[in-house]
Amino acid sequence: MDRIPILRLGELLLVSIQVDMHDRLALALQDDLAERIVQTGAQGVLIDISALEIVDSFIGRVLANIASVARVLDAETVVVGMQPAVAITLVELGLTLPGIRTALDVNRGMALLRESVFDAPAAEGMDDPFAE
Amino acid sequence: MDRIPILRLGELLLVSIQVDMHDRLALALQDDLAERIVQTGAQGVLIDISALEIVDSFIGRVLANIASVARVLDAETVVVGMQPAVAITLVELGLTLPGIRTALDVNRGMALLRESVFDAPAAEGMDDPFAE
Repeated sequence: MDRIPILRLGELLLVSIQVDMHDRLALALQDDLAERIVQTGAQGVLIDISALEIVDSFIGRVLANIASVARVLDAETVVVGMQPAVAITLVELGLTLPGIRTALDVNRGMALLRESVFDAPAAEGMDDPFAE
Repeated sequence: MDRIPILRLGELLLVSIQVDMHDRLALALQDDLAERIVQTGAQGVLIDISALEIVDSFIGRVLANIASVARVLDAETVVVGMQPAVAITLVELGLTLPGIRTALDVNRGMALLRESVFDAPAAEGMDDPFAE
């Protein structure tokens, strides 16, 4: 597979990562997602990783990059569906996914995004990359 | 990968098929989906096939089986995201996906499901497997 599909759910975009990430795929996802955010004006991105049994530092970096790109394009990213074993391994490895918000599942991720993007005109706790 | 993740979106379930289906994976998906429908009481299932570049008679049968199982469990299935080339090939092969409803993308599929499941108390055009 060359591309991970990006699904549009109302004002949100949803990405379900089901395959092992490699460099090219990660870059393609980042490009596609940036393009779709601009195209659709989406303000929220959900990344489901429930199919991943391993999240290593490479995947962690990919997720952080995607979140940073989305943020510059005025979209919030929430990573959802992390398996319990993945969470434990991440902490054991000292990878705390800085800058990435997480939620238990897609439903809760959607609620989180709707809350922070649509209800709060100036949401607190959102990093503004241009703030100094 | 052993399992295709099933995501819950409110009252709907969403499955994004991104990998080549084989027998075991198709059966596992069917089992998992039936279980999740019962567990969540979902009345709608969206199957996104935008990542598939080939839909042959095997995949067609898998989709039809899933839709039949869902229907018996009182859930409607809509297949979304079919690529134009896939649609053309299907028709050329004489595969018309009988009993499967389709929509252009997830958004439209959600609208279709909401309309037929939630707005219409006795939706027309829905096959009732127990009607005689």
